[in-house]
Amino acid sequence: MAPRQPLAISLGDPAGIGPELIAEIWTQRGSLDLPPFVVAGGAGVLRNAGRSRGIDLPIAVVDGPSEALSAFPDAVPVIGTQDAVYSPGEPDVDGARLALASLEHGLALALEGDAAGLVTLPVGKAQLARVGFPHPGQTEYLAKACGVAADDTVMMLAGPSLRTVPITVHCPLSEVPKLLSVELICAKARTVHLALRRDFGIESPRLALAGLNPHAGESGQMGHEEERIIAPAVARLQDEGIAATGPHPGDALFTHRARETYDVALAMYHDQALIPLKALDFDEGVNTTLGLPLVRTSPDHGTAFAIAGEGIADPGATIAAIRMAGAMAARRAGG
Amino acid sequence: MAPRQPLAISLGDPAGIGPELIAEIWTQRGSLDLPPFVVAGGAGVLRNAGRSRGIDLPIAVVDGPSEALSAFPDAVPVIGTQDAVYSPGEPDVDGARLALASLEHGLALALEGDAAGLVTLPVGKAQLARVGFPHPGQTEYLAKACGVAADDTVMMLAGPSLRTVPITVHCPLSEVPKLLSVELICAKARTVHLALRRDFGIESPRLALAGLNPHAGESGQMGHEEERIIAPAVARLQDEGIAATGPHPGDALFTHRARETYDVALAMYHDQALIPLKALDFDEGVNTTLGLPLVRTSPDHGTAFAIAGEGIADPGATIAAIRMAGAMAARRAGG
Repeated sequence: MAPRQPLAISLGDPAGIGPELIAEIWTQRGSLDLPPFVVAGGAGVLRNAGRSRGIDLPIAVVDGPSEALSAFPDAVPVIGTQDAVYSPGEPDVDGARLALASLEHGLALALEGDAAGLVTLPVGKAQLARVGFPHPGQTEYLAKACGVAADDTVMMLAGPSLRTVPITVHCPLSEVPKLLSVELICAKARTVHLALRRDFGIESPRLALAGLNPHAGESGQMGHEEERIIAPAVARLQDEGIAATGPHPGDALFTHRARETYDVALAMYHDQALIPLKALDFDEGVNTTLGLPLVRTSPDHGTAFAIAGEGIADPGATIAAIRMAGAMAARRAGG
Repeated sequence: MAPRQPLAISLGDPAGIGPELIAEIWTQRGSLDLPPFVVAGGAGVLRNAGRSRGIDLPIAVVDGPSEALSAFPDAVPVIGTQDAVYSPGEPDVDGARLALASLEHGLALALEGDAAGLVTLPVGKAQLARVGFPHPGQTEYLAKACGVAADDTVMMLAGPSLRTVPITVHCPLSEVPKLLSVELICAKARTVHLALRRDFGIESPRLALAGLNPHAGESGQMGHEEERIIAPAVARLQDEGIAATGPHPGDALFTHRARETYDVALAMYHDQALIPLKALDFDEGVNTTLGLPLVRTSPDHGTAFAIAGEGIADPGATIAAIRMAGAMAARRAGG
């Protein structure tokens, strides 16, 4: 079924690798059979970014989703006139303003139903902070803008080898044991369970929960969070009919054989989830936010200012993010 | 150069997969060009374990290293008469006593110069505790038996993709921030540096230190251990002429590109090291103890009681452990 709306893509920081990846990926739209997309602003940035990869990029400035769909085969559809001077590898305040405007515009398109979902390209946090952006990252901004509490959204990382969710995310490691609770784990797990059913088409998702301590505490010999928090959370989820298992020793959970036994691994902290994902799937890792009223994905890498404009940035993760957003949106639309 | 001593192998728990792996690996000694080894006890256990893999295993009970070397091409050399009744998958007290006697004997052979090094196969901790073994694991036992303080030994995990060392090991995650210190990190790093030079033939080993917190603390926004402890440790090591870098974000440290930039990754806690090692190299992971007066390696898996005797246990990690011990011993001997 042909999509009725394009995906919206936000530019990310124009001094990073986002714009050149869009240019590169558009040229591969046919061979990769990608879902159509429209870029929120940055026509000039995109044209220049294309040149850095030897691409003479056709741009079609469009007014809405149907125009974007018709334009996509022949040009990169761009909606909105926001733009900036292109300066690869040299982030500045104008670029940060464009990144933010593009993100806001992309979100509006998705919320208003003019886009099937939103793919966000990487921003520079330090740059955004300088233009008054008060959020730790785009995910927190999107949750707030959608009126969703941060604890009700979930960051899921996905690659060809693994889907994984960190229950706690951007906090000091020393605070993780205090932040974990049966309620938090169950809330995140329910969001994951619902999203895997609705957006990923997995009828009875298998959730594997990691322990916090070495060997999942080895029956309390090395920590008690497993007995006090994680095992009770698993039991409660099972009572609710969710196929949850664990707590599993963190290091046993990501072996190639273990990965075949679940649909998603729930890790207790940032690195427990991100280390195996990046070790296994760095060039194809997608970050998706579950629990929002829109489909949102993002490549799991940063702005890479150091290599921006050199034409060597790998488009794999962004291609995977576009594919995933397209598939999630199609399932939500019943396609 | 032909080795002057065989490696000693301890049986591990006879109800686990250790003995059948020895039988399997001995049959592949020629095709794999393995260094010669002698098993500490368990002639009857080995013979029966061989049968579970369809191997009619010739055993040569020997008295010393030169006899073991001559016997190795035609039979598995076994030194010592300790033995037990074979009961795959059903650990018992007799088996635990045999595992302990084999470990003690193997250690003695290595310390007395009758073995070039010691390869220990997996024991059951619960079983060993029942026969009065007070140590958390074989490594702690070996350190104590050699009169080396636990902090002066280092557990290094190595596979085809990665060498990594956890600075703290078997403690609750909540204690890790309190246990880390500049002194501890530097002591472990010096032991690693020396061992990579002496036993692994790396002239100027590159040590990459992980951060503790997400994004290595992001300049103190998510934890201060990087600024207070890890960065000063890196600086001190650099002052001592060691090629140390970091603190690197934990999740960035184990990508395939990052792994090309160092010889060993120093992780701050158990799972930070073990997760990537097992995700990438589970079937070939070797655990080696640095800082002991002997060469000691071990396959990085457990007794696998559940599959013992079924003839399906993968010998890859034990083969890698034997190879590594052989290579380390040869370098120590100046070979």
